[in-house]
Amino acid sequence: MTGLVLFATGNRHKLAELDAVLRGCGYRAEAAGVPKLELQADSLEEIAVAAAATAYAAAGRPIAVEDAGLFVDALNGFPGPYTSYVYKTLGVRGLLRLLEGAGDRAAEFRSVIAYAGPWGVKVFTGRVRGTIAAEPRGSGGFGYDPVFIPEGETRTFAEMTLEEKNRYSHRAAAARELCRWLREAREAP
Amino acid sequence: MTGLVLFATGNRHKLAELDAVLRGCGYRAEAAGVPKLELQADSLEEIAVAAAATAYAAAGRPIAVEDAGLFVDALNGFPGPYTSYVYKTLGVRGLLRLLEGAGDRAAEFRSVIAYAGPWGVKVFTGRVRGTIAAEPRGSGGFGYDPVFIPEGETRTFAEMTLEEKNRYSHRAAAARELCRWLREAREAP
Repeated sequence: MTGLVLFATGNRHKLAELDAVLRGCGYRAEAAGVPKLELQADSLEEIAVAAAATAYAAAGRPIAVEDAGLFVDALNGFPGPYTSYVYKTLGVRGLLRLLEGAGDRAAEFRSVIAYAGPWGVKVFTGRVRGTIAAEPRGSGGFGYDPVFIPEGETRTFAEMTLEEKNRYSHRAAAARELCRWLREAREAP
Repeated sequence: MTGLVLFATGNRHKLAELDAVLRGCGYRAEAAGVPKLELQADSLEEIAVAAAATAYAAAGRPIAVEDAGLFVDALNGFPGPYTSYVYKTLGVRGLLRLLEGAGDRAAEFRSVIAYAGPWGVKVFTGRVRGTIAAEPRGSGGFGYDPVFIPEGETRTFAEMTLEEKNRYSHRAAAARELCRWLREAREAP
């Protein structure tokens, strides 16, 4: 038996990463094709919960939202919740320029999945610490993957296969949390 | 007779600038003290309209929202709608670093006032072209004022008095549009 989790997203990379994890617990991730409310807020949780709750209210069926961001220590958490806007305008080069000469290149990728349904809104989180590379490397993944090296690795996310990236990634970690809950819910009396 | 326009904002600099213009047409700007919905969107209009409409619906009385941003040509419009977040995290220094060596330092400050009431949502806009200074100068204003030199000037916004800044500023221009509409509305039969 395969269950389905509908995600409000137009990002096919994101969907593929979520799907790869959910398949491991007997589910599939598919695009919901519903409009998504995106708040300005300093926390990913707040953004994802509001988006999932309103999408569920509008669609009338359970909807999940995944929101992620790159938080760079030396930049006070920038670009954080606005990572995708910053990637679109400044790209990888802009981020590297902001870190020129920085002694501290530590950063964290965070992911929050909010899943809204008759059960309310469940929140699942994942994070991965790492460092920002001096130069972009690799052609896999998307966004800032070419400059993010997870702890314990020498390669960037963009130099890994999806399976390798999912061993470390924030998004996969959040998706595994979601899997755990889906399994429990299925086994509940 | 003095009318009152309530703004959903906690920024006293912003309020003072709006108030200085509105006094010129017999109104005052005051803080509404209501929560404000802030969307992520590429356009200030969309953000301001949604915020004003929801604040009006919640408060049950007319509410105005002013949203502003600095759009730098060479940075594809960055920081745009996220100017206040970027100021908080990267400051003035981060913006200057992104423009190091840039031949083109042109930028635009934009302001949108959305005023929601029984009339629906009215939108008033203002913009001012200028350049980003090489170094911050002056102690007036707020945010990126110390590095913005409006066209036709050699001083930054932060080197001007509020009255001088309001001769050029995007926010004052939007507020003057609001004044025009308030006057018309008052004179309507």
